[in-house]
Amino acid sequence: MEFDEQAIRSVIDQWVRATAAGDTPELMGMMAEDAVFLTPGQAPMQRDDFAAGFSAAMEHVRIDARSEVQEIEVAGDWAWCWNYLDVVVTPRAAGAPTRRVGHTLTIFRRENGAWVIARDANLLASGV
Amino acid sequence: MEFDEQAIRSVIDQWVRATAAGDTPELMGMMAEDAVFLTPGQAPMQRDDFAAGFSAAMEHVRIDARSEVQEIEVAGDWAWCWNYLDVVVTPRAAGAPTRRVGHTLTIFRRENGAWVIARDANLLASGV
Repeated sequence: MEFDEQAIRSVIDQWVRATAAGDTPELMGMMAEDAVFLTPGQAPMQRDDFAAGFSAAMEHVRIDARSEVQEIEVAGDWAWCWNYLDVVVTPRAAGAPTRRVGHTLTIFRRENGAWVIARDANLLASGV
Repeated sequence: MEFDEQAIRSVIDQWVRATAAGDTPELMGMMAEDAVFLTPGQAPMQRDDFAAGFSAAMEHVRIDARSEVQEIEVAGDWAWCWNYLDVVVTPRAAGAPTRRVGHTLTIFRRENGAWVIARDANLLASGV
């Protein structure tokens, strides 16, 4: 259990690094095939939509996130994580950075021994 | 598993009914002691905060929700549910109803044989 929690923390750290690096293939490798991303006021995003949106955004911005894991609970081949994220989005050209802060509730699934993101609820809102 | 999924669907139906009835004690009975409710742009709400906020709101509005369960997954004494909610908030005095629609991702825990809400991410936004 301790081992699984550590493995999930590593996935989250890897996710933050791959996001900053704009590495879409690495992010896709951390998602289940049927991954779903939920955000307020938008339709659910599938894995390919997420990747396309992320790649398009990377042409214009850099995304730096700080993660403060609140809880991880493992149950067999499923796990859930409550996380707090502080995200700064910096335009690659001119313009001021914007900040988004808030919580995520993420469902992880164990696939071939590795933990991948299966469902993600992203509650981030504009930060001060 | 089938049985547990049905039990969780019943809890959700009961939650919708208790919400419409303004029955705070019944809602509290469906939450874990350490329940946490997450919403965009707000601090996490504990069980007592939720109950106090709900009771205060009930003096002014009636809340009618329609639930369309998208997925339920059970893993031992934990379960998660992706739900779609369509909520109408109607003032008890004058004023037009408002509508909020969107997704929730909820973690349930089995306690003494009953499924209770442990963590809830509420992504509802203003609806048309």
